[in-house]
Amino acid sequence: MSTEQTLDPKDWAELRRLGHRMVDDALDYLEHVRERPVWKPVPDSLKQAMRAPLPMEPTDAALVYEEFRRDVFQHNMGNIHPRFWGWVIGTGTGFGALADLMASTMNPNIGGGDQGPNYVELQTLSWLKEMVGFPAEASGLLVSGGSMANLVGIAVARNAKAPSDVAQQGLQGATRRMVLYASSETHNSVHKAMSLLGLGRDAIRSIPVDSEYRIQVPELRRAIAADRAAGLHPFCVVGNAGTVNTGAIDPLPELADLCQSEDLWFHVDGAFGALAKIAPELRPLVRGMERADSLAFDLHKWLYVNYEVGCALVRWPEKHRATFVSPADYLAHLSRGMPAGPIWFSEFGVQLSRGFRALKVWMSIKENGVKNYGRLVAQNCDQAKYLAGLVEKEPELQMMAPVPLNIACFRFAPQGLDDSSADRINEEILYGLQESGTAVPSSTMLRGRFSLRVCICNHRTRREDLDLLVREVLERGRAAIGTAEVPAP
Amino acid sequence: MSTEQTLDPKDWAELRRLGHRMVDDALDYLEHVRERPVWKPVPDSLKQAMRAPLPMEPTDAALVYEEFRRDVFQHNMGNIHPRFWGWVIGTGTGFGALADLMASTMNPNIGGGDQGPNYVELQTLSWLKEMVGFPAEASGLLVSGGSMANLVGIAVARNAKAPSDVAQQGLQGATRRMVLYASSETHNSVHKAMSLLGLGRDAIRSIPVDSEYRIQVPELRRAIAADRAAGLHPFCVVGNAGTVNTGAIDPLPELADLCQSEDLWFHVDGAFGALAKIAPELRPLVRGMERADSLAFDLHKWLYVNYEVGCALVRWPEKHRATFVSPADYLAHLSRGMPAGPIWFSEFGVQLSRGFRALKVWMSIKENGVKNYGRLVAQNCDQAKYLAGLVEKEPELQMMAPVPLNIACFRFAPQGLDDSSADRINEEILYGLQESGTAVPSSTMLRGRFSLRVCICNHRTRREDLDLLVREVLERGRAAIGTAEVPAP
Repeated sequence: MSTEQTLDPKDWAELRRLGHRMVDDALDYLEHVRERPVWKPVPDSLKQAMRAPLPMEPTDAALVYEEFRRDVFQHNMGNIHPRFWGWVIGTGTGFGALADLMASTMNPNIGGGDQGPNYVELQTLSWLKEMVGFPAEASGLLVSGGSMANLVGIAVARNAKAPSDVAQQGLQGATRRMVLYASSETHNSVHKAMSLLGLGRDAIRSIPVDSEYRIQVPELRRAIAADRAAGLHPFCVVGNAGTVNTGAIDPLPELADLCQSEDLWFHVDGAFGALAKIAPELRPLVRGMERADSLAFDLHKWLYVNYEVGCALVRWPEKHRATFVSPADYLAHLSRGMPAGPIWFSEFGVQLSRGFRALKVWMSIKENGVKNYGRLVAQNCDQAKYLAGLVEKEPELQMMAPVPLNIACFRFAPQGLDDSSADRINEEILYGLQESGTAVPSSTMLRGRFSLRVCICNHRTRREDLDLLVREVLERGRAAIGTAEVPAP
Repeated sequence: MSTEQTLDPKDWAELRRLGHRMVDDALDYLEHVRERPVWKPVPDSLKQAMRAPLPMEPTDAALVYEEFRRDVFQHNMGNIHPRFWGWVIGTGTGFGALADLMASTMNPNIGGGDQGPNYVELQTLSWLKEMVGFPAEASGLLVSGGSMANLVGIAVARNAKAPSDVAQQGLQGATRRMVLYASSETHNSVHKAMSLLGLGRDAIRSIPVDSEYRIQVPELRRAIAADRAAGLHPFCVVGNAGTVNTGAIDPLPELADLCQSEDLWFHVDGAFGALAKIAPELRPLVRGMERADSLAFDLHKWLYVNYEVGCALVRWPEKHRATFVSPADYLAHLSRGMPAGPIWFSEFGVQLSRGFRALKVWMSIKENGVKNYGRLVAQNCDQAKYLAGLVEKEPELQMMAPVPLNIACFRFAPQGLDDSSADRINEEILYGLQESGTAVPSSTMLRGRFSLRVCICNHRTRREDLDLLVREVLERGRAAIGTAEVPAP
C-alpha cells in the first residue's frame, strides 16, 4: 500500500453509484426536455453561487454533483430543446454524450502516435470525406468547429499562394498585398481568420450579393481584375455553402471555374450547408463544393453531434502539413513504440494536445447511419419551408429572405406599421418568446430591418412547434401594436 | 404522436441500461489500470476495423458500443496509467469523465449569452486567476490547450504593440519588422503561433540558455539592442515557466523588469509549470510569472483534468477583446433574452462555438481542492527528484539535465560506451520499455545526445514505479550492450 496521494476515489463503488445516478439524470433530462421551457433568464441565485471563493479543501464528489444539479443543470442555453432555433446551433444526442464519457475516460491525447484513438479519427475523417464528396487522398482534421476550420483552410491558402515562404519569413516584408474575396454575407469567422493571419480585414473584398443573398460573380470578376491591375495579389475566394443569415448557397461551380482559371485557392465555408450533400434531394444545391481546395464544416451543427467538433479538409495534404508542421526534438517521429503510428495530427492544425472528439462522431455515425442523417437534414429544410408557408399565409407576417435550406427569416409587419416601429416590436416579440420559454429564435438585420431568424439544426423539432411559433409571434405582435408607443421621431 | 423523425431513442430505458453499463466499464477501466500494460502497439485487427465502409444504415447503440469495447477501448495511448511519463501529458480522473458526460448532455454553446454554463466558466476563470496570481480584472478564456493559449497571448501582443492596426490593415504594409524573443528551449507552439500570425518563424530570436536550460538575460539584452539598432521593432519576450525538455524556469522577475523598461509585451508559457504556483514549496520558483501581460497554461496537464482544456489569461481585457472581436448582425448583443448575458467569450478567442469544457474544471477543483492539487504537484516534483537520486546512484546511468520541476532526463551510458552507440542503445531501451508495456517515457535530444525523458504529470505514479523503471533500464541496457553490434563508421 502506497502512502502517496492520488486523485482516484477511496471507494470506487461509491463513484460508481454516483455515475449511475448521473446517467439517470442525464437521460431523464433529455427524455423530458420538451416539457420544460426552452430557456429562462439566469437567476440571481446562480450568479451568486458562481462568486464562491476558491475551494482550498476537497468536497465529496456527490456533494459537488448536488451543487451542479441545483445551480447549473436547470439553467442551460436550451439548444437541446425542440423549439430552439437560434444562430446555427445543433442539438446533440444522448448516445453522443455517453460517447464523450468514454472518450474522457480513455483520455488520450490525439496529437499523434500509435494508439487506437488515432485510427478512429482517421476512419472518421475518411467517412466525412466521402460524405461531402472529397477525395480519399485529401488531408483532414477534426477541430473545435467552423471558426477553426475556416482558419485552417485560409492559413493553408495563404501559405500555398504566397510568393514567398510565409511560415518562415512572415508577411512583414511582403511587397504585393494578398487579397481574399468573399460575399458580403460571409461569416465573421473569415474576417477573424484574416485578422489573425496578419493579412488584415482590409484584405477582404466584400462582394455584393444578389436578391437571394448569393455572391455576384460578375462583381467578383471585376474586383479581381481591378486588384490585379492595381498590382495586388488575389489569392483566395471563399464560397459559402449555406450563409449564416439566410442559408444562401453561392454558385459554387462558377466559383470553382473562376478559381481554376484565375489560379486562386477555392475555400468553401460549409459550416452547416456542407451536410446538404448527404440528403439526396438537396445534394444538387451544393454541387461544386467537392471541387474546393479546402472545406470547413461542423458536425455539432447539422450532424447533431454533441459540442464541440468541426472538420477541416484540404485537397493538398503536403500544403496542409507544410502550413502547420513545426518540428522539435521532443516530438521526434521514432520508428517504433508509442511515437510511431500513422499520422501526427498536430502537424495539420494549431493544437498539439488534442482530445478524443473523434469518438462521438464515429459512434454517432455508426448509430444513426448516413441515410438517417440525410433524412433529418431534409426534414429540417422541409420544416423551414413549412414555416415559410405559414408565414406567407399570414398577412401580418413577412418573409425577409428566400429559404434555400433550413433558415427562415421573417418579421411581424402588418400594413400601416412603419419600419422602425416594426423593428422595435419584433425585438419585443423576440424577447417575449425567449423570456416566456416558448421558443428561441435569434435575430439578424436583413435589408436593414430587424428580422426574426429561425435556423433549424434540430432533430427534435416538429411541425407543431412551428405552428406554435407563428401563433405566438402573431399574438405578441398584435399585443405590442395595441400597447406600442409612438416611436420618437 | 409526430410522424417526424428524431435521433432520440425509441426506448429510453434501453439507453439507460447501456449508460449504466458504460459507467461500470469506465470505472472498472480506471480502477484496474495499474494491472494492465501501459501501452501496446496497435494490432492489425484494429487497423482493419478502422477501414470500414461508410455506414449508411443505423446500428443498435448497444452493438456500436460493443464494437468500441472490442476494437478501441483496449488500445489506448496509456497516459491514464501510473507509469506513463511521455511528453507532458496529464492523467484525468473518473469524476472528470463523468463531468464531461453532464457537459455533453447539456450540450450548450458557450460563445456567450445569458446561460448558466457561461457563469460557470467565469467562476472557473476567476479561480484560475487566483491560483496563478493574476489580478481578478484580467480577462481569460478556456481554450483547447497550451498551443492555443500561446497563440492567443502572442496575437494580443502583436496587435497591442504594433505601430498600426494589425487586425484591420494586416502586416503586409509593415515597414519595421516586429521581433519576438524566447529561449532556444521554448516550445514549438510559439514557433507555430508566429508562423500562423504572419510574423514568421524568422521573427523569433532564439536566445541561448545557461547550463540549467534557462534563458541568458545578458544575451537577450544584446539581441534586443542589436535589433533596435538595425531598425527592427522588438515587441515581445516569451518567458518559460517549465520548459518542455527539462522543466527549466526562466528568470521571470528579470524578464518582467526588462520588458517593463524596454516596453515589451511579457508573455509566459507556463503550460505545466504555472501550476507550481499552487504548491507552497514550489511557489518561489515561478515568482515573477504574475507580472506577465499574458499567461498560457494547461489544466489537462498538471491539474490532471481530462482532455482538452487550457487557459489563456491577459492582463489587459480591452487589448484582448480588440484582438478577437469581429461584430456581425447575427451576433448582435441585445439587451434582453438569451443574447444578453455577462460576456461573449467568442470575442476573446478563435472559437465562436465553444463547448462546456468549464464544467469538468469547476467540478474537479471543487472535488479535489487546491491544497490537494498543490500536494500532488509537489509530489510529482519529489518523484522526479527521487528518480534523479536513483539514477545518480547507478554508475551506468547519467543525468542529462537538472530537475527543477517534474522532469528527469537521463540515459544509459556506462563507461567505455561511445556516444553514438549509447544513442542507439537508449533508443532501443525506450522501444523495449514501451513495447513490453512496462513504462512510457519519451525522449529528447540534450547536448546533442538521445535522452530518456520522464515527465510526471501523473496522480497515479508511485515511487515503486520509478524503482521499476530504473531496474528495467539497467537490464535492457546491459542486455543491449551484450548484443550490440558495432556501429557503422
